[in-house]
Amino acid sequence: MSGRADFLKRLEEWGAELAKSALSLKEPVMEIPARTLSNTIWDEKARMLRLGPEKIHRRFLDVKESRRFMQTVLMLRLIVDAIRADVYPTIRDLYYNGKHTIVFKDPLGRVHRENTWDEQAESNGVIEDIEVATNILREEMGISADVKGKVVGPIVVRSQGYELDASKFGETALSLPVNVDALEIVKVEASYVLVIEKDAIFQRLVREKFWSQENAVLITAKGMPDRATRRFVKRLNEEYRLPVYVLTDGDPYGIYIYSVYKSGSIKLSYESERLATPKAKFLGVAPLDIERYKIPDQFVIRATDRDIKRAQELLKYPWFQNDVWKKELEYFLKTKKKVEIEALSAHGLKYLHDYIKDKIRGNKFID
Amino acid sequence: MSGRADFLKRLEEWGAELAKSALSLKEPVMEIPARTLSNTIWDEKARMLRLGPEKIHRRFLDVKESRRFMQTVLMLRLIVDAIRADVYPTIRDLYYNGKHTIVFKDPLGRVHRENTWDEQAESNGVIEDIEVATNILREEMGISADVKGKVVGPIVVRSQGYELDASKFGETALSLPVNVDALEIVKVEASYVLVIEKDAIFQRLVREKFWSQENAVLITAKGMPDRATRRFVKRLNEEYRLPVYVLTDGDPYGIYIYSVYKSGSIKLSYESERLATPKAKFLGVAPLDIERYKIPDQFVIRATDRDIKRAQELLKYPWFQNDVWKKELEYFLKTKKKVEIEALSAHGLKYLHDYIKDKIRGNKFID
Repeated sequence: MSGRADFLKRLEEWGAELAKSALSLKEPVMEIPARTLSNTIWDEKARMLRLGPEKIHRRFLDVKESRRFMQTVLMLRLIVDAIRADVYPTIRDLYYNGKHTIVFKDPLGRVHRENTWDEQAESNGVIEDIEVATNILREEMGISADVKGKVVGPIVVRSQGYELDASKFGETALSLPVNVDALEIVKVEASYVLVIEKDAIFQRLVREKFWSQENAVLITAKGMPDRATRRFVKRLNEEYRLPVYVLTDGDPYGIYIYSVYKSGSIKLSYESERLATPKAKFLGVAPLDIERYKIPDQFVIRATDRDIKRAQELLKYPWFQNDVWKKELEYFLKTKKKVEIEALSAHGLKYLHDYIKDKIRGNKFID
Repeated sequence: MSGRADFLKRLEEWGAELAKSALSLKEPVMEIPARTLSNTIWDEKARMLRLGPEKIHRRFLDVKESRRFMQTVLMLRLIVDAIRADVYPTIRDLYYNGKHTIVFKDPLGRVHRENTWDEQAESNGVIEDIEVATNILREEMGISADVKGKVVGPIVVRSQGYELDASKFGETALSLPVNVDALEIVKVEASYVLVIEKDAIFQRLVREKFWSQENAVLITAKGMPDRATRRFVKRLNEEYRLPVYVLTDGDPYGIYIYSVYKSGSIKLSYESERLATPKAKFLGVAPLDIERYKIPDQFVIRATDRDIKRAQELLKYPWFQNDVWKKELEYFLKTKKKVEIEALSAHGLKYLHDYIKDKIRGNKFID
């Protein structure tokens, strides 16, 4: 059950408390941290987005709140049932499993019909409420989700008793589990962690044995990272003090991906403490690298309106409030130039290696 | 180099032949199987899409052909250089590495400028030409690409000398390599292979130890499969005689994914012989399963115009020309109903297991 028993107990206790109130004829009330934009704050010291102190009180007898109250109790029951039955449903399974129509008569004898929930967005929101109210991640509850992360390098992990040495995977890779916290890190003797936006570039570097030359752990989540990959990167940085460098395309989307690894997304700010790696550094490709590494004009791509808009947003993020980032982003906004990481191959098929080493050895990354 | 040396020799020989013609003042001509729709044929006996006998002759001295001829020779050089340098570029690396402007003067002294190629689609097409002309897959040439496939179950493989036992991965999974042909299958003692469209469902079944209860190899490629996953599935079916079942959402896109595993896509018909698994069976969710497994109306989703259009196309595919598929697809077109695989959870969170077993034990899959 990989630790699910403890979480089951905490979930049961939360449910029992609500039941106790009801049985003693007191109004059951849930206290849940507010997952709102106004309650999302920038924690300057921890350097990450975080939920503020605001709480909502979901009252059973409040007409506006009772529907959501009932949904929360229903979802809690589904999750508790799943743990007891040792199944690992996806959030979509839970949506379908809990969706039904409640039929009831009012005091005047009129029949009413009410769906437990109509859309998956509704049931997902309820799961998030339970996460913040109980401080148990959905991964810990055993809810399944897509997993994107792959790892290769000098690291040994243990999952359900099986040891996996990611330095002995040849041209394959280790695919991360949904619940990274149940993954024991047995040993990691790496110089650094290289997080790579593009899967194909990850594959290249694996096949070219870049990781063993550099003694680095290579990780990719194929674009925007999922929760498991972010959690794993954080653990390597904080529990094992490994420097983390993020390598992306040279465009605002690449910088945004870095930003999500580093400080979290607004949507998941309530998870930043578990997911963000504030010490992650941006390796590149940075906007000014087009000049620094003399990338010929014919390889430069014209930015789209969406790129421009995203760069303007990035400029406002608290963690980009320093001269280096301002210079980079303003250069981008002025020149409207972007490049793919593969454009480095214009200087030769192995230039990518030199680029990465130059950035790290020369402290040319950005914080 | 995992077998790249042999392929290097064949590529060099092809290049040497062209050079020999040129040096002996004969016009160099490349003979390349035509990758056109009209040359894509349905091989009834092999039950897959295949390239027909048509060949194009790319002549050096033909004005219409000379550009493409030059591109092919340039790309051949880049690939040969990469193998010699032991690097594993992506197709995008090759595009950037080969892109430059050729400046030349005509007999009247006028300066002309010509790009080697303008778009990646052009350089990709050249790579495909080299694949069909030499009968060497780009994976075998060591060209890197995104890899989507993950595997778990009673199978032991070897990559670059390292043995990996996919029954000992706990809650992690083995991520396939780019070149599945360089992966040695040391041992596989499974009852069947279950190919799962959705990654989250794969994760569920891994965590619920479905594969060990069923002694099955579980594979996912998260949606539309890439070449590596298709090749791996084919190898398990043909080299190891394992039945292959494909599990998808109950919609035309799911059936299309099955179709790609089974018979190939028109775009990659020239690779079907290496990639298609004609004996793969469709486990479901089939359109009529909505009735067969009594999926309540509130879980049924209305099909979109795109679904309808896709179903109409599927009906024309040679490999769906049988009564069972006609009945399923016509039922879909009549009712316009589709369901997600998670809708099975309406009957309980473990119903998915029963569904899969019922389909396999009861021979209720579709060919």
